[in-house]
Amino acid sequence: MNIVILAGGSGTRFWPLSRKKTPKQLMSVFGGKSMLQRTVERVLPLKPERIFVVTNALQAAETERQLTDFDSDAIYVVEEPLARNTAPAIGLAAAIIERQDPTSVMVVLPADHFIRDEEEFRAALLRAEAAAVDWNLVTLGIVPTGPETGYGYIEADLFEGTQAALPVKRFVEKPPRQKAIEFVAAGNFFWNSGMFVWRTDVILDRIRTLMPELWAGLSVLDVPNCLSRLHSMNEQVTDLYGRIESQSIDYGVMEKAEGVVVLPSSFGWSDVGSWSALPELLPGDEAENVAVDASRIVSLDSGNCLVRGNDKLVALLGVHDLIVVDSGDALLVCPRERAQDVKKIVDELERQGLTEYL
Amino acid sequence: MNIVILAGGSGTRFWPLSRKKTPKQLMSVFGGKSMLQRTVERVLPLKPERIFVVTNALQAAETERQLTDFDSDAIYVVEEPLARNTAPAIGLAAAIIERQDPTSVMVVLPADHFIRDEEEFRAALLRAEAAAVDWNLVTLGIVPTGPETGYGYIEADLFEGTQAALPVKRFVEKPPRQKAIEFVAAGNFFWNSGMFVWRTDVILDRIRTLMPELWAGLSVLDVPNCLSRLHSMNEQVTDLYGRIESQSIDYGVMEKAEGVVVLPSSFGWSDVGSWSALPELLPGDEAENVAVDASRIVSLDSGNCLVRGNDKLVALLGVHDLIVVDSGDALLVCPRERAQDVKKIVDELERQGLTEYL
Repeated sequence: MNIVILAGGSGTRFWPLSRKKTPKQLMSVFGGKSMLQRTVERVLPLKPERIFVVTNALQAAETERQLTDFDSDAIYVVEEPLARNTAPAIGLAAAIIERQDPTSVMVVLPADHFIRDEEEFRAALLRAEAAAVDWNLVTLGIVPTGPETGYGYIEADLFEGTQAALPVKRFVEKPPRQKAIEFVAAGNFFWNSGMFVWRTDVILDRIRTLMPELWAGLSVLDVPNCLSRLHSMNEQVTDLYGRIESQSIDYGVMEKAEGVVVLPSSFGWSDVGSWSALPELLPGDEAENVAVDASRIVSLDSGNCLVRGNDKLVALLGVHDLIVVDSGDALLVCPRERAQDVKKIVDELERQGLTEYL
Repeated sequence: MNIVILAGGSGTRFWPLSRKKTPKQLMSVFGGKSMLQRTVERVLPLKPERIFVVTNALQAAETERQLTDFDSDAIYVVEEPLARNTAPAIGLAAAIIERQDPTSVMVVLPADHFIRDEEEFRAALLRAEAAAVDWNLVTLGIVPTGPETGYGYIEADLFEGTQAALPVKRFVEKPPRQKAIEFVAAGNFFWNSGMFVWRTDVILDRIRTLMPELWAGLSVLDVPNCLSRLHSMNEQVTDLYGRIESQSIDYGVMEKAEGVVVLPSSFGWSDVGSWSALPELLPGDEAENVAVDASRIVSLDSGNCLVRGNDKLVALLGVHDLIVVDSGDALLVCPRERAQDVKKIVDELERQGLTEYL
């Protein structure tokens, strides 16, 4: 098994903690280890052959630094010259793996997701690995726990509670609330986790037929030897990335390919899409105020606040449903319901030329 | 003229900036110099004979430190052994001054008030000095600019817009709103500023008749020579403070004495009673968000917030009428209308034994 961790995202919704050089996956969202480090740690018990962490030039140094915490010579950093969404990142990783081990199983994981039950997660990956051996493209579908409107859905053949992978009928974009309620009620819809398992030669074959331009570039790459860490791509990769379009693997391959199956999974999952996702994932005090780090909260007539005090004592007086995040050089205050709009603050900083805060 | 600055207050309503050792008067509420330093600076152009800053043991060191910024050998620190409200503080200062210059005029000023028009303030003190020479106890009464319920009022003979001092009819405690509206409409009510001007021998004589116990103690004091700074009081003072009761000069003398007059004054005054007082006194941005220090505010759909970012950028998203104060080791978030309750947070910290934040 080869594991590819997609760690090149540049999310802005965790500002002021997430920055261009330290996006969510490199942040210690839950205190202690970063999301990326937790993602690596979570798969190490599976003893994968190799782990490839795909990132970009801006984040490569910090990514490398964080990975040195693991005493493993099977972890490689793949540095993309440009951000081109998931399809090129996965294609590049597949091309690298293929030179070593074309029929190996390849697991693709985002670097910035929360998983509560790690044992069950690893068990799901092993089931997916088994399902991948007959040329299937396996996607992990999360059994929904509520009518979330922040996730895409995957419709499958009827789910009968078994652990078998199910043929996929269609991928559905983030739905409006009423649709989400219907999906959950129907029982054969799953959250699209962005986690995939397939044979390396199979995904490359699908890229060949569905994304021929990307494949053409990948197939002629003089892929560097993967037994040493990849600090920078060769000129061919830079050329390729300059030519190809930005495309997600979902749109580029999964929605069109044959043999796509979904593996129903339940391991306490969240994509941790914004600050407002954290209160669901972390324990709160008696007033349901949640400290992301170990900050001490003293509250009067306050509740349901999310706080990152940056080692400060945070006193809440008469406030509810508020997000308060101190990053050291910046402080964000906003209602929880506005968490999705934190990126607008980032836009505003950009507009005002306050680049030191980006 | 001798000036006595009462700097021994221990306010808690500016927590987390104000602490036991650095209460409001020692804080840089408006950035730059502290309230005490501004109070001293404000009277220096009057070239007073001596300035006495009355404080207590806990704050004496910081008070001394702040006063060394003034290159003057006419500033003395008087350290009270215990906090006993304004009457003993004023009595002690009067006893010290009396040994040097019994018929001198003595000006009493709180150390923690805001004054916008300093020229006019000094002009008012000079008018008060003139009114004090015939044995009057002069109190500066602020011509009200609105029906404030946070101030005590002084009722006087009818105010006809002249600058003459008016005989006082009565002192009124902080009124309910309806009363305050009536007072302002009546035209002969003034805010009690806590600023007094009188001859030293006159106030001591009134203390003699109205607060005989305090006077008895003061009259036998072997007052240290005031030409050197007073770092600590002698044992007699400690004895006296152990015996006398805590009493305000308003209740102990002013409300009962003969010859009390009020000098109508208008110089843009505020006692800066809580965080919520500051937005009235400081310029805001286009959304009326106010930064107490020079912190930069970036706001979207937000307004009327008071911010002290402690040199951080503060991003406000979708919040209104909020107080956000970062002191370095603590962060306060509360609605402006709850500013008076900040002391409850201090009580709570005390209850929880979090003494490092007090």
